Amino acid sequence: MLQELKERVCSANLALDKYGLVVLTWGNVSALSEDGERVVIKPSGVSYSEMKPEHMVVTDLQGSVLEGSLRPSTDLLTHLELYRAFPGVRGVVHTHSRCAAALAQAECGLPCFGTTHADYFYGPVPCTRALTPEEIREGYEKNTGLVIAETFRQRGIDPGAVPAALVCKHGPFTWGPTPEKAVENALVLEECARMALLTRQFQPDAAPAPQSILDKHYSRKHGAGAYYGQA
Amino acid sequence: MLQELKERVCSANLALDKYGLVVLTWGNVSALSEDGERVVIKPSGVSYSEMKPEHMVVTDLQGSVLEGSLRPSTDLLTHLELYRAFPGVRGVVHTHSRCAAALAQAECGLPCFGTTHADYFYGPVPCTRALTPEEIREGYEKNTGLVIAETFRQRGIDPGAVPAALVCKHGPFTWGPTPEKAVENALVLEECARMALLTRQFQPDAAPAPQSILDKHYSRKHGAGAYYGQA
Amino acid sequence: MLQELKERVCSANLALDKYGLVVLTWGNVSALSEDGERVVIKPSGVSYSEMKPEHMVVTDLQGSVLEGSLRPSTDLLTHLELYRAFPGVRGVVHTHSRCAAALAQAECGLPCFGTTHADYFYGPVPCTRALTPEEIREGYEKNTGLVIAETFRQRGIDPGAVPAALVCKHGPFTWGPTPEKAVENALVLEECARMALLTRQFQPDAAPAPQSILDKHYSRKHGAGAYYGQA
Amino acid sequence: MLQELKERVCSANLALDKYGLVVLTWGNVSALSEDGERVVIKPSGVSYSEMKPEHMVVTDLQGSVLEGSLRPSTDLLTHLELYRAFPGVRGVVHTHSRCAAALAQAECGLPCFGTTHADYFYGPVPCTRALTPEEIREGYEKNTGLVIAETFRQRGIDPGAVPAALVCKHGPFTWGPTPEKAVENALVLEECARMALLTRQFQPDAAPAPQSILDKHYSRKHGAGAYYGQA
Repeated sequence: MLQELKERVCSANLALDKYGLVVLTWGNVSALSEDGERVVIKPSGVSYSEMKPEHMVVTDLQGSVLEGSLRPSTDLLTHLELYRAFPGVRGVVHTHSRCAAALAQAECGLPCFGTTHADYFYGPVPCTRALTPEEIREGYEKNTGLVIAETFRQRGIDPGAVPAALVCKHGPFTWGPTPEKAVENALVLEECARMALLTRQFQPDAAPAPQSILDKHYSRKHGAGAYYGQA
Repeated sequence: MLQELKERVCSANLALDKYGLVVLTWGNVSALSEDGERVVIKPSGVSYSEMKPEHMVVTDLQGSVLEGSLRPSTDLLTHLELYRAFPGVRGVVHTHSRCAAALAQAECGLPCFGTTHADYFYGPVPCTRALTPEEIREGYEKNTGLVIAETFRQRGIDPGAVPAALVCKHGPFTWGPTPEKAVENALVLEECARMALLTRQFQPDAAPAPQSILDKHYSRKHGAGAYYGQA
Repeated sequence: MLQELKERVCSANLALDKYGLVVLTWGNVSALSEDGERVVIKPSGVSYSEMKPEHMVVTDLQGSVLEGSLRPSTDLLTHLELYRAFPGVRGVVHTHSRCAAALAQAECGLPCFGTTHADYFYGPVPCTRALTPEEIREGYEKNTGLVIAETFRQRGIDPGAVPAALVCKHGPFTWGPTPEKAVENALVLEECARMALLTRQFQPDAAPAPQSILDKHYSRKHGAGAYYGQA
Repeated sequence: MLQELKERVCSANLALDKYGLVVLTWGNVSALSEDGERVVIKPSGVSYSEMKPEHMVVTDLQGSVLEGSLRPSTDLLTHLELYRAFPGVRGVVHTHSRCAAALAQAECGLPCFGTTHADYFYGPVPCTRALTPEEIREGYEKNTGLVIAETFRQRGIDPGAVPAALVCKHGPFTWGPTPEKAVENALVLEECARMALLTRQFQPDAAPAPQSILDKHYSRKHGAGAYYGQA
């Protein structure tokens, strides 16, 4: 079932390792099937050096395992909430990449300081509120997805234009129209977080980039008038 | 004697190098035998590129060499005190990994700022008091082990739940039920120390993670209710 | 057309990747032909792992494509302005290398703190003023080149002696008498930016190097009295 | 002439690159012959990827080339002054390694913050005074060596016990009884400088290690009572 998607999800997980975004087994990628009814996700706690497409786990949108002999990633229920809340998303990534996780631990969103950020995220990347002790004790992983969706809904952020969130005291989640694009967003988020820290170290009062830069750079790469890359 | 354990201890030492936790020969791993009466440890000052299982040194719990033609690591007596003080520990690691050693030089413990830390250490990682000049002059390596044990005893920390310590002005020691797990803890300690520094750089007043996060993440991976990884 | 130059431009682009100056496809190198009428430049958004000399695009100085089936880099018009404004320049590089981009995001020029900088740049590397919203909306890439030229003209900086600029809220551009030399300048700029940050971290009030150091080190490597390297 | 020493000096230069201490050609190693009358040094500005033993240059102690078709490193005269001033030294290294060069640019010495430093340097590593404009204009490289020697003489530091100096606004020089040991000292200096920065970032008022730590760790590795490593 979903053989090609398992291969893509496996490759996308290995890409996290190749890009230096994970230590040990601290990351996971999933994808939503074309019919929107099944999810392919990394198994929990399996080493990247041994990971193969046949280890990928297939579940339905309630998280019941349809195929695979291994347990799915413990973050599965977070992924499922994101697929439910954000139409058009077909890939979700979670990592503990250093600078993005540090921002989450600092309970700070990521301001847009320049064109590198604006090429990928059309505005600041938000940090969620802290979960309550009750939300942590019961349904923790599901509530993690719900608080991301709440953050975007309450602040009126378009998850298609800002495909990333920082979960308070935890770390980054990113998404996209494909698992490969979600991985690319995870890489760019980490790079922009590192660059934001360096920016503040050079200039503690550094100002965000003006709206005109955001408009220009985001539209160079996205939408009908995009002119970056090949047609 | 203990051929398999020598191979594991040799591999565990090489893993320190592979994970980027050591410069030159600045690290060592030991293991306690199943009968709890012998220790296998890296020889002193041998290059990782030349290290082989037959170089490992076997000693008794008083530090007398039972087998091996090379001198054991100078830190042997510290390892022995840890095996004596912490029942259930069968692997000990010492490194000078950058961020953890910097914390030790700064005489700071490592606060738990988020889930990455809580997945491995159920609370802050303590920094010991400074040794007195007398403790340094006589029995230095033994006293280093004793001051770690004292720290955990006096502060009521469970060495099974927080398998790491920072030795004041020196660097990190970690441990675990196996030498491989002790190495993993050394890697995670360094990563959490780096992430803690980045967290403070983003937000100098960053608060520790709440107890509910510690409870949830630690128990996801440890104890009867653990549901991370494969059964 | 310009087969040899295409190979050099392709190699120079790959060198950006080898030196760790680019993430994904975030960099580009161009070269001016010997007759000064054609430019060879990287195509837009093509992965470094697949890039070959035949992918390079040849344009005239107005930016019309003379050869090549791919779109040129979106930054082409910036490169063209630099060739127009700075006589003798035959190679131009743009990257988003971390520390140099962070300086640009911080709207800070790079002071000369020591001999490493003075060996390559005969004075501080300037940061441009911000473009106006109008300059960003219309003719953005061309205006980026114009504001670099304006910066050097207004501040009386010799672009031959300081072959680098930081574009406000964007990132670094470097140049040189060959594309290879422009790449070398991009690498040195990043290294000096990183070293400047570390310098300020050790000493927030660090003073720039005195003029005598600038004179000595720059002249050891450049001009009639140079005595660094081989004759 | 001195074939074996040329091979060792070539390997020692390549080790700088392997250890990540140099960018481009920014580093050099020399060695003094057993008879104390000839120096073997890296040629100036030759790429590490092409460097071979036969490229090494042999000079006398006045800096006249005795053998070799390439120009010696421009820093030759600094090396010669160190051999003259510091008896027993048979290897000298210069790099622009990041953290050590940043300390030099910040005009700061390196305090001893812990055991990593004390294992190699028996006290703080000093930073020289700035050279005067006259000392820079005439005889710059020779004066660089003289100011290092002056620093150790005036402050009563034993160059055998602290085999490293930071040259104000420039970068580090290290030395030792062999070229290999001088390279090791260059690596450790960089590591200790990085660790010192991290220490101050965790704790801006971090105190130096007490004398008892210095005495213990230095004597574990050096002198008659040393017990680190193999006999």
